[in-house]
Amino acid sequence: MTHTTDIRVYYEDTDAGGVVYNANYLKFAERGRTEYLRTIGFENKSLKESKGILLVVRHIEADYLKPGHLDDLLTVETSIESMKNTSIVMKQLVFREKDMLFSMDVTIVCVDADGLKPVRFPDDLKAGFEKGI
Amino acid sequence: MTHTTDIRVYYEDTDAGGVVYNANYLKFAERGRTEYLRTIGFENKSLKESKGILLVVRHIEADYLKPGHLDDLLTVETSIESMKNTSIVMKQLVFREKDMLFSMDVTIVCVDADGLKPVRFPDDLKAGFEKGI
Amino acid sequence: MTHTTDIRVYYEDTDAGGVVYNANYLKFAERGRTEYLRTIGFENKSLKESKGILLVVRHIEADYLKPGHLDDLLTVETSIESMKNTSIVMKQLVFREKDMLFSMDVTIVCVDADGLKPVRFPDDLKAGFEKGI
Amino acid sequence: MTHTTDIRVYYEDTDAGGVVYNANYLKFAERGRTEYLRTIGFENKSLKESKGILLVVRHIEADYLKPGHLDDLLTVETSIESMKNTSIVMKQLVFREKDMLFSMDVTIVCVDADGLKPVRFPDDLKAGFEKGI
Repeated sequence: MTHTTDIRVYYEDTDAGGVVYNANYLKFAERGRTEYLRTIGFENKSLKESKGILLVVRHIEADYLKPGHLDDLLTVETSIESMKNTSIVMKQLVFREKDMLFSMDVTIVCVDADGLKPVRFPDDLKAGFEKGI
Repeated sequence: MTHTTDIRVYYEDTDAGGVVYNANYLKFAERGRTEYLRTIGFENKSLKESKGILLVVRHIEADYLKPGHLDDLLTVETSIESMKNTSIVMKQLVFREKDMLFSMDVTIVCVDADGLKPVRFPDDLKAGFEKGI
Repeated sequence: MTHTTDIRVYYEDTDAGGVVYNANYLKFAERGRTEYLRTIGFENKSLKESKGILLVVRHIEADYLKPGHLDDLLTVETSIESMKNTSIVMKQLVFREKDMLFSMDVTIVCVDADGLKPVRFPDDLKAGFEKGI
Repeated sequence: MTHTTDIRVYYEDTDAGGVVYNANYLKFAERGRTEYLRTIGFENKSLKESKGILLVVRHIEADYLKPGHLDDLLTVETSIESMKNTSIVMKQLVFREKDMLFSMDVTIVCVDADGLKPVRFPDDLKAGFEKGI
């Protein structure tokens, strides 16, 4: 499964270089992952409050390929690369039509919300991800 | 005319108090104004590049009424309060269903993109706003 | 007492208009208030964790007077306008040398960290603010 | 040379998970690089306006090791890993006292400010970086 989320570029996303500020692609990516979760039936808030877990970024490797600009309509594509008991690797690509602007592999770890120590994905979340692979 | 824009609250919008960070309502409001502009046929980028103008915030007066939370689906309502040759006052309200979270009156000034001095709204933009009143 | 905090403008603070993005002055103002608190002996984290309170923004009224630019060294001046049992009004001015860029009156309310309902300022915090008036 | 910049964590930097939001470490890193540049005699604004170049992020590889929290005083350490005619690789580490929170290798490319195409570093900037190696 490749999940897509549309994102409009506003002034808040740009910088004085006239392009989308580099850190903001990580925000776009997190919106994409959040909507991916919502699609398979989960929300960050209930993961924290009901299941006591957080999904945190552990590692990223990213390429900035072309600049984004004010008013662009971008698409974030999110898919699962691989999965373990407590972590998952997702690939996230940001496109403006055919142009790939940004590409990232991100490793997400499931941690308990209090101690922030790695814990196994809850069964239903794991099953949701497995359907997405 | 009251224009509405939907906004989802992501982790990026929240703070360690567990609520939407205060400055981020101004970002939501600008998204609302930008989509208002788009609805009447204008984009920030082309206003700058084709017409040589920017619409800048000159004055705000805002109330924070209730906190927003992670995963909330908010609605920004934008309407025009009054209009002059070089400036416009808009009212912007942020709702979560029936609950009003935030209310702002914002004065926007039309300035030339180079010198940032006030200039009259271009005729077509003025006409677009007047239809919205 | 007028408390001052220096702030350097980085790319993250600017937008494609080539100036400091409007919402970011509210971030600068909060940094100023936080350093004011630190000067009188308090930290946001310990206010929350030890005293169970948050200081939240309830109302703002602000003027954007001149644009800030990349690499500017700005100064936030923070002083107390007035104080009640559960709220305080502060004046915050942002300068670049002699030029005032931004001026804001902000009403801050003391709330309990769980229910976010107004509560009286703790005595020691109230005493700290009173020395600052 | 290892350059260090101190950074205080404010509410704006945190999220509802109670920790520093992942994208904000990239902002901290850019502040560190900007202060590195300032130390060797250069500013982003004058690089753009006088020399017509921008230094843009092309590739990042980063590890999130421990969470940062509200009110933390962090230190960004920046050093040069390697350098070519049009690009440079920097290592940036974020510490809270002895604890390393974040580690990143970032590839920066020198581009012309108009077309955003790679160009050689200006001689004086190259010489400045070489002193830093």
